[in-house]
Amino acid sequence: MTDEVLEPAAQDFQLLRILAALADPHRLAAVRYVARNGESWCTQVMQEAGLAMTKSTFSHHLRILREAGVLTKRIQGTKGYTRLRKDDLDRRFPGLMDSIIEADVSLSSSDPPT
Amino acid sequence: MTDEVLEPAAQDFQLLRILAALADPHRLAAVRYVARNGESWCTQVMQEAGLAMTKSTFSHHLRILREAGVLTKRIQGTKGYTRLRKDDLDRRFPGLMDSIIEADVSLSSSDPPT
Repeated sequence: MTDEVLEPAAQDFQLLRILAALADPHRLAAVRYVARNGESWCTQVMQEAGLAMTKSTFSHHLRILREAGVLTKRIQGTKGYTRLRKDDLDRRFPGLMDSIIEADVSLSSSDPPT
Repeated sequence: MTDEVLEPAAQDFQLLRILAALADPHRLAAVRYVARNGESWCTQVMQEAGLAMTKSTFSHHLRILREAGVLTKRIQGTKGYTRLRKDDLDRRFPGLMDSIIEADVSLSSSDPPT
């Protein structure tokens, strides 16, 4: 299986790109899920983080997070697993991910617009 | 002078909205400028943070930051002054603004796309 997503090295992380990747309710929920649960099967992230979307849409969100450097993905057999690049993120932007993971977030703001 | 921008109370801050407000190179530069310099005349922020844009465009960015709760604005005479809502932000999302203000940011990522 080819995976053409380019995950940047930590020294190439861009704060703006990371903020933009996190500034989406579904992506933020996915990141907070893997932050709490460690490396997770991608399908499990979708299901347990309450992301009601197609697999293709989830892949799109995952790609944005990976290209920003927030998450990384590993293929094992036919399954993809993702985890937070916590050490890299902490080294480049100390405190950023902790503040976001631990934030008292009301995700009611993620309710779809009517 | 009427100012119809609604600045939320700290308990109504939404992490997603704050992240989205910060995920723009001009807005991030403005926020980092006032974080370093304290309350500043809006025109000064534009000029000294290197924001090459019309006053109207700057007002638009400032509005997004104010509606998210990142900045507040005060009118004195004919001049508007803005400052970071650091205490409110720290109370709601501890560590978030410090990590962003202190980040070793290469704003080269804000270069306009060619």
